[in-house]
Amino acid sequence: MVHGRVSRLSVHDVRFPTSLGGHGSDAMHTDPDYSAAYVVLETDAEDGLKGYGITFTLGRGTEVVVCAVNALAPHVLNKDLGEIVGDFRGFYRQLTSDGQLRWIGPEKGVVHLATAAVLNAVWDLWAKQEGKPLWKLLVDMDPRTLVSCIDFRYITDVLTEEEACEILRQSQVGKKEREEQMLAHGYPAYTTSCAWLGYPDATLKQVGCGTGFCRQFKVKVGADLQDDIRRCRLVRNMIGPEKTLMMDANQRWDVPEAVEWMTKLAEFKPLWIEEPTSPDDILGHAAISKARADSPLGVVIFKQLLQAKALKFLQIDSCRLGSVNENLSVLLMAKKFEIPVCPHAGGVGLCELVQHLIIFDFISVSASLQDRMCEYVDHLHEHFKYPVLIREAAYMPPKDAGYSTEMKEDSVKRHRYPDGEVWKKLLSAQGN
Amino acid sequence: MVHGRVSRLSVHDVRFPTSLGGHGSDAMHTDPDYSAAYVVLETDAEDGLKGYGITFTLGRGTEVVVCAVNALAPHVLNKDLGEIVGDFRGFYRQLTSDGQLRWIGPEKGVVHLATAAVLNAVWDLWAKQEGKPLWKLLVDMDPRTLVSCIDFRYITDVLTEEEACEILRQSQVGKKEREEQMLAHGYPAYTTSCAWLGYPDATLKQVGCGTGFCRQFKVKVGADLQDDIRRCRLVRNMIGPEKTLMMDANQRWDVPEAVEWMTKLAEFKPLWIEEPTSPDDILGHAAISKARADSPLGVVIFKQLLQAKALKFLQIDSCRLGSVNENLSVLLMAKKFEIPVCPHAGGVGLCELVQHLIIFDFISVSASLQDRMCEYVDHLHEHFKYPVLIREAAYMPPKDAGYSTEMKEDSVKRHRYPDGEVWKKLLSAQGN
Repeated sequence: MVHGRVSRLSVHDVRFPTSLGGHGSDAMHTDPDYSAAYVVLETDAEDGLKGYGITFTLGRGTEVVVCAVNALAPHVLNKDLGEIVGDFRGFYRQLTSDGQLRWIGPEKGVVHLATAAVLNAVWDLWAKQEGKPLWKLLVDMDPRTLVSCIDFRYITDVLTEEEACEILRQSQVGKKEREEQMLAHGYPAYTTSCAWLGYPDATLKQVGCGTGFCRQFKVKVGADLQDDIRRCRLVRNMIGPEKTLMMDANQRWDVPEAVEWMTKLAEFKPLWIEEPTSPDDILGHAAISKARADSPLGVVIFKQLLQAKALKFLQIDSCRLGSVNENLSVLLMAKKFEIPVCPHAGGVGLCELVQHLIIFDFISVSASLQDRMCEYVDHLHEHFKYPVLIREAAYMPPKDAGYSTEMKEDSVKRHRYPDGEVWKKLLSAQGN
Repeated sequence: MVHGRVSRLSVHDVRFPTSLGGHGSDAMHTDPDYSAAYVVLETDAEDGLKGYGITFTLGRGTEVVVCAVNALAPHVLNKDLGEIVGDFRGFYRQLTSDGQLRWIGPEKGVVHLATAAVLNAVWDLWAKQEGKPLWKLLVDMDPRTLVSCIDFRYITDVLTEEEACEILRQSQVGKKEREEQMLAHGYPAYTTSCAWLGYPDATLKQVGCGTGFCRQFKVKVGADLQDDIRRCRLVRNMIGPEKTLMMDANQRWDVPEAVEWMTKLAEFKPLWIEEPTSPDDILGHAAISKARADSPLGVVIFKQLLQAKALKFLQIDSCRLGSVNENLSVLLMAKKFEIPVCPHAGGVGLCELVQHLIIFDFISVSASLQDRMCEYVDHLHEHFKYPVLIREAAYMPPKDAGYSTEMKEDSVKRHRYPDGEVWKKLLSAQGN
C-alpha cells in the first residue's frame, strides 16, 4: 500500500567528465560530459524508502534543469504519495500545466526534462514501496489503472482512453509466457559503443566485438561525408555483410542534405538513420522516411510522425519523454500503428531506466520481438546501485525493487558539479 | 561603425504582479505575472552605450530563464561587437549549437527564450551604435547583409539564401513610399485588452472602445463553452456585426475538441482562432485549419505549417522566436507563401519590440497591409524608456535609436524578484 507524505525534494547537478575521452561524441555534440539532474524524494513514512529520479544532460546546462526542478518542487512537496499515484493523470497534468511555468515549455526542453526527473523519482518510490521492479509493477497493473496514468490531452485524435484499454486487454493473452521468456532470455540489445565520432580508427577496431555484441552496431555520422564513408566502410568490413548496421546523424542535416547524404551512405546498408534533421520537423521526417530515419522525441511529435507514416522504427527515451506516463502513451500509439519500438539509451542511466519500459512493452503491449532491440552503451553503469545486467547481448529483467534510478552515494558526492572532488581537481587543473 | 568588446552581461528577473488584477488571464494561464528575463550588455567602447534585451515570461520560471542566460554568457563575453554582427549567422549558430547546452533545447523552451533575450540585446546595441531605430537599421541594410543574419539550417527545403535575397531585391520597388506611409500613418493595430478570461462582464463592456480601438477585438476562449458563447455574444453585440473579432484558445483543446468547439463559436464570425491545440501539432493544425487557427511558434514549426497550408495568418513573436534573426527568416517564408503576418504582442515589451519587425516587414518584405494588423495590449508600457506610440489605432514608427527594449532603471529596481520593493511588500503580506 502506497503511503507517506513527500517531506523533502533535493536535486543534484552530477556530471561525469566523459569529454576527456571522446566518449559519446557525435556530429552535434562534440564534447559531451554525460550528466544528470538527480532528484531525491523523501517521505515521512516509517519505511525510510526514498525515490530517485534522473534526467540525462550533457554537462553545461544541467544547472538550468536543476533550477527548473526546484521551480516544480512546490507541486510535489507535502503531497501524499497515495494521492499522487491514485490520480497520476491529474498529478502529471498539474506538473505540466502550471499556469506560469507552462509558458517556458510547454512539454519540451528544460522544463520537460525537469518534469521527467521528478516523475521518475515518483515512479521509483512507488515501485519500491510495492517491493517490485518497475517493469513488474506495470505488468501486474490492471489496464484501467495503467491508463489512468496517461494524460490524453493532444492525442485523442489518434488514441482514446478506451482504445488504450482495449489494446492492453487484448495483450493479456500469453502474458505469463512472455514474462517467463524475458526472465530466461532477456530483451535483445544492440550497441553504439563501437563508433563514436571522436574515436580514432584503432579504437573503432578494438571495441567492435566486446560483451557478446556481435550482431548489431550503430555508427555516428553527419559531420563529414568522406569521413563517414571511410568509417562506415571500415565498420561494415569488420562486421561483414550480414550483420545489422545503424547510423545516427544527431540532427545535423537539412532535409535535402539528409536525402543526398543518406543516398551516399546507402551502400553500407543501414537498417535506419537516426535523427537526420530537426526533431521538430514532422514533414521533413516524412519526406526522408524512405531512408529509414528515426528520432527520440516528445509525445505530440511522435503522434504526428505515426500519423504521417514518417517512422519505420520508434525510439522512446526514458528521460526526454515525461517519465513512464508519457512512455505508456507512446508505446500504446506505436502498438496501434504497428511500428516497432527500439528505445534510445546510453548516456547516464538511460539503459537502467528504459529496460523496464521495453520489457513491459514486450510482455503487456507489443507481444513481439520482431524488428525490435534496445540500445545499449557500456558507460557509467558502475555509478548505479542496481546496474543493468547484460547477458549474451540481452537486457536481463531487473529484480530489485524500483526503477533502477538510484546512484551510489559516493559517485554522486564525487561528481557533483562544481564542488565534488572530481570537478574540483579538473577545474583547478584548468586554472578555474 | 560598430565597435567595442562585450565587457559585461548582467541579467535580471523582473516581474509585474499582473495576476492581482486578472490581466492577461486565459484558458491555460490563469494567474500570469507578466515578467521578463532582462539582459544588459556593456562594452569597453567609449560611447558608453548599452544593449538591452528582454524575453517575456509569466512569473514563476523566470529564474530558470535567467539561469539559462547565464549559461549562454560565455559565448558573448569578450566578443567584439563588430565581429558578432559581421558574422551574425555564425554567432547565432554558436549560441544555438553549444555542444552541451543544445541537448536541453534545441531551439525551444527555456534555452531559446534565453537566446532571444541575449540576441535582442545585441540588436539593440547595434542599432544604438548606428544611431537608428531597429526597423530603420533593417530597412537600410542591403539584402545580402540582411540575409547573412539568417541561419538557414533546417529551412533550405522551403527557403534558400538565394531565394531570400531575391524576395528582398524585388521588394525594393516602392520602399521609399512605404517608409513615408509608415511615418505618416503607422501600422494598423488591434487590441486584446478588452476580453481577458478573468475579466467580469462589467469590465468587458467598459474597455471595449478605448484609445481609438474600435475596429478589431480579440477574445480569450477555451475554458468553458457556455461561458465562451455568452462572452462572445456580449462582445459581438457590443461591437456590431461588421467589426473584426478574433479568438484565442491558448492551446487548450485536443484536435477533435477544437473542431467541435470552433464550430459552436462560428456564429460569432471570428477572423481566426489562435492556438487551438498543442503548438507542436502541425498535422493537428492542418486538420483544423479550416477554422482559421494560428499560433506564435518556432522557425521549424512555422516552416511546416506553411508547407502543410495549416495557417491562414502567421503570428510572429519577438521573444519566442530567436530574436530578429529568426523573425527575418519567418517573414521571408511567409512572403514566399503569401501568408499575411499578424504579430503576437502584449506581455511585457512585446509591443515595443515587434512593432520594429512588422514595420520593416511592410517596407521591405510584404509591401502590403491587406489582411494585416499587429496585436496591441495596453499594459506596462510605462516601464519602458521608449514606449510604443499608438495613434488612431496604429503603431507609429519609433524614432529613438535601438530596439525599444530598454526599461526604466527605477522600474527594474522596484520589480526585481524577489528583492525589489514591490515584491518585498507583496511577499511579506503573503507571509513568505
